[in-house]
Amino acid sequence: MKDGKIDGEGLDKLIEHVLAGGVHGLFLLGTTGEGPSLSQGQKIQMVRRAGAQVKKRVPIIVAITDTVVEDTLELAQVCAKAGADALVVAPPYYLPPGPAEFLAYLDQLLPALPLPLFLYNMPSMTKVSLDTPTLAEALARPGVIGVKDSSGDMGLFHKLLSLRAAEPRPRGWAFFTGSETLLAESVLFGAQGGVCGGANVDPALFVELFEAALARRMDRILALQGRLMALSAIYGHGHHASSGIKGIKCALSLLDVCGDGMAAPFAAFAGPERQQVARDLGALGLIPR
Amino acid sequence: MKDGKIDGEGLDKLIEHVLAGGVHGLFLLGTTGEGPSLSQGQKIQMVRRAGAQVKKRVPIIVAITDTVVEDTLELAQVCAKAGADALVVAPPYYLPPGPAEFLAYLDQLLPALPLPLFLYNMPSMTKVSLDTPTLAEALARPGVIGVKDSSGDMGLFHKLLSLRAAEPRPRGWAFFTGSETLLAESVLFGAQGGVCGGANVDPALFVELFEAALARRMDRILALQGRLMALSAIYGHGHHASSGIKGIKCALSLLDVCGDGMAAPFAAFAGPERQQVARDLGALGLIPR
Amino acid sequence: MKDGKIDGEGLDKLIEHVLAGGVHGLFLLGTTGEGPSLSQGQKIQMVRRAGAQVKKRVPIIVAITDTVVEDTLELAQVCAKAGADALVVAPPYYLPPGPAEFLAYLDQLLPALPLPLFLYNMPSMTKVSLDTPTLAEALARPGVIGVKDSSGDMGLFHKLLSLRAAEPRPRGWAFFTGSETLLAESVLFGAQGGVCGGANVDPALFVELFEAALARRMDRILALQGRLMALSAIYGHGHHASSGIKGIKCALSLLDVCGDGMAAPFAAFAGPERQQVARDLGALGLIPR
Amino acid sequence: MKDGKIDGEGLDKLIEHVLAGGVHGLFLLGTTGEGPSLSQGQKIQMVRRAGAQVKKRVPIIVAITDTVVEDTLELAQVCAKAGADALVVAPPYYLPPGPAEFLAYLDQLLPALPLPLFLYNMPSMTKVSLDTPTLAEALARPGVIGVKDSSGDMGLFHKLLSLRAAEPRPRGWAFFTGSETLLAESVLFGAQGGVCGGANVDPALFVELFEAALARRMDRILALQGRLMALSAIYGHGHHASSGIKGIKCALSLLDVCGDGMAAPFAAFAGPERQQVARDLGALGLIPR
Repeated sequence: MKDGKIDGEGLDKLIEHVLAGGVHGLFLLGTTGEGPSLSQGQKIQMVRRAGAQVKKRVPIIVAITDTVVEDTLELAQVCAKAGADALVVAPPYYLPPGPAEFLAYLDQLLPALPLPLFLYNMPSMTKVSLDTPTLAEALARPGVIGVKDSSGDMGLFHKLLSLRAAEPRPRGWAFFTGSETLLAESVLFGAQGGVCGGANVDPALFVELFEAALARRMDRILALQGRLMALSAIYGHGHHASSGIKGIKCALSLLDVCGDGMAAPFAAFAGPERQQVARDLGALGLIPR
Repeated sequence: MKDGKIDGEGLDKLIEHVLAGGVHGLFLLGTTGEGPSLSQGQKIQMVRRAGAQVKKRVPIIVAITDTVVEDTLELAQVCAKAGADALVVAPPYYLPPGPAEFLAYLDQLLPALPLPLFLYNMPSMTKVSLDTPTLAEALARPGVIGVKDSSGDMGLFHKLLSLRAAEPRPRGWAFFTGSETLLAESVLFGAQGGVCGGANVDPALFVELFEAALARRMDRILALQGRLMALSAIYGHGHHASSGIKGIKCALSLLDVCGDGMAAPFAAFAGPERQQVARDLGALGLIPR
Repeated sequence: MKDGKIDGEGLDKLIEHVLAGGVHGLFLLGTTGEGPSLSQGQKIQMVRRAGAQVKKRVPIIVAITDTVVEDTLELAQVCAKAGADALVVAPPYYLPPGPAEFLAYLDQLLPALPLPLFLYNMPSMTKVSLDTPTLAEALARPGVIGVKDSSGDMGLFHKLLSLRAAEPRPRGWAFFTGSETLLAESVLFGAQGGVCGGANVDPALFVELFEAALARRMDRILALQGRLMALSAIYGHGHHASSGIKGIKCALSLLDVCGDGMAAPFAAFAGPERQQVARDLGALGLIPR
Repeated sequence: MKDGKIDGEGLDKLIEHVLAGGVHGLFLLGTTGEGPSLSQGQKIQMVRRAGAQVKKRVPIIVAITDTVVEDTLELAQVCAKAGADALVVAPPYYLPPGPAEFLAYLDQLLPALPLPLFLYNMPSMTKVSLDTPTLAEALARPGVIGVKDSSGDMGLFHKLLSLRAAEPRPRGWAFFTGSETLLAESVLFGAQGGVCGGANVDPALFVELFEAALARRMDRILALQGRLMALSAIYGHGHHASSGIKGIKCALSLLDVCGDGMAAPFAAFAGPERQQVARDLGALGLIPR
């Protein structure tokens, strides 16, 4: 964000930065993407600009999560026209729906969606922890092609993959982890990939880790995981839910990719935290010490 | 809601129903008012219609809570023009702000608000439990005139009122409880009133209870509290956060005040729950048994 | 505690201190009484010494809560012989029992208990929040004569009292609040009293507040509540669950009633916190400033 | 348990069952071992009998967790004399200690312990979530040789192992996971092993999985993980914290290893759940279908 507006040039540069790092797709308007802090107009603008910049070089997935169904459906249409490839939806995040209510919500959305849908499990923000039976039922819906799980709960992961393995007629839905420190083990055990906030900063690191996991090269994985954990230091300079996003934006600004402006009401890291992030990046050789 | 739109006629009838019951003000677009499920356009329509219907007979307070600051500020302007008297804001409800971030949020809003502001503490929905020091700091902001607390935590209530009593220069901010079963004791101990969802159904009961509490008539309070607890049965016919709202809407429909349509993605009570609510109302003599 | 042992003389002096303040009964081995930190031998010693000191001047209730049923039952027998009048039990606090398991637990205990039993709802420590239906079922057990509720949830309180009022054949079970700041309103609305940690420090204040509530003298209640809130300052000088107990013990030591030794592994307040508690007591005139 | 007493013969048979399966050590009196439900006398009896049965064939680790420090220290001495090799301690589980209080607790214990100590992170039962800085400080204490983590939080795991890797002078503390479905990935990424409740039922499966993880044989791991997930079905036949233990005991009884008696106040699975566990074991070929 820049002066309360989408920083379009910054967005373009960020997209080129992560594409240059080799990422296999883009995930827009999620938690790190500050989706819920953007107005409907800004979301639409964002999706269109990203679609125009990417020009189908990689798939784009857009989070259409909202508390307003009408806005969710409108955004879905914009996504399809802008060249997105799939959508992702978490439970509406004010009044938390129960399991049956969440499934009914999906049944309202699905017939009206122009693109395939991923589920998004994000209990820390939505207050709704999608459990195995609910996810299993939801994944059985035609039009639902996978799940992004940001619960950090590898027990749930193993249960879901175990269900997937036991399906009589495998539907082949995809599992993406939203917990970047769990990317490697998720892929080793059968996940299709991850949606990693840190990949905005150092996309090549995550691409290499993903490929090492696919190739089951444990020594390589452990080396890259060590680097990933070092990069995670940028999330530790604050106390609240916003700290992770601030850390990433601050790093992107230090790397001269784009500005560090946060969507209101949150504010970018000030001097002391910025110096700490600079030190973190310096230790990794991402910027000169 | 009716067919995905604001049920304007129903809204008018509901307003007349609660005014006829003697309520001292209206609170729009809160949790029970389904504010977060309405699009910005629907919110604006709602505020305008209510303002036109009320015609200044009682004060109107409108919840402008949102995750998008721009929308919050726009709605505030609409409220002022539509004849509202005050605004109320809870923390943005996706990425939960820390105490300092919440105060910074207020400092962004306050200079731009055309009306005085109440704080809204609603931890079960916002994930943010505003504590005593944060509330005390927030209540010291010029422009902040009170707090609506839906935490149900009478310990916090007593701490806040104790702070208010100890203020060297009393600013006279108001305390409203959002927990209707705690209305009487809150008023007995110094609260200015309550925002009671059940008052949509039986407004006179809440007005009488409020007045009995103001007059410290304990026998009367206990009798009315008993009736209030009986009315609370309508909240018990469901398992999720939406149950309370469904119960109120169902009751209003049975009383022929307005329809029971919920804002998407939630759905009105079906037959069995409706029969239970009918039984509850019948036992209270609100509808024929 | 003194040198890892029960401070018998301190206990005697504390008992005389609170009896001199007019309390209507003693509650031993609860949370503030550090019951769970004492060995079975120390608990037995404590109950016997207290019984011998009280000599039936007031009723004694003893918490026999434990994770070991055998120890609970043994302690119950000791209580009966030592002159206690009733027992109180919270759910076993390691593996949290479900509702049916808690009721089965009661059914194991009740036939073997030599004294009537209170239930103890203490979710913050036991992880078990006893809800209305479970409490209602438990209170219907012969031998169960009441509930001490430390949930701080006045909504639950009103539900329970509403159920009690609706009983076809009133069993007359008692409700005691464990939240001292809620004593007055609980009694106003029908509670039989409170178990108030702060009454160790200033017993007369709580006795007067209780009596003012019984007499429904609101002005008096508000004045005393103000003093109670001021006394609550002693709970605010620490960050953990132990802070409240440390504050009370520190105050008792400053009042020269008994030492401030905590049961291991916790430690008494050190200098800075002690000075703050002294300031709190000084402001109330309980010790010279 | 059998008739309220330790089932000594059952214990011996269970020990031989798991040793026959090749386990590398025993973990006594943990959550699954029902430690907190046993009296001090029963704990002592259990440790002695197990020590006598094992006769140093494998190392024994004993959980000395308690809310009573005196009992913890006494049990530690018994363990040393009974032939145990290490101790493990979780935070006292009634009044939850803060970080500094937990470290002070360790400093009280360590000088008096006759055996090396593991830390036990078990937030679901103790209400205390040991975080990275606290664990790091605790692991730096002489006498502390590792941590058993049952948080299920692989993010914490990676942080701890990352800290371990960065130690200037590696102390070589061990990491054991208490989440059996996470055993393989934990070992792949550097854990020393796991404490797996399911290994009571099918010890060879867990030994093979551990060895496959050590050898980094992913195909083998995935096959065994599938079997492990199928075995996990025995945890799913109940609704409360006790369900897992009931499932294991029920399975052991069906396998004719020992009885299914639970420590009071909990009760063994009744007919319907027992039939489901039998079906689970039958599907795995552990008992005839």
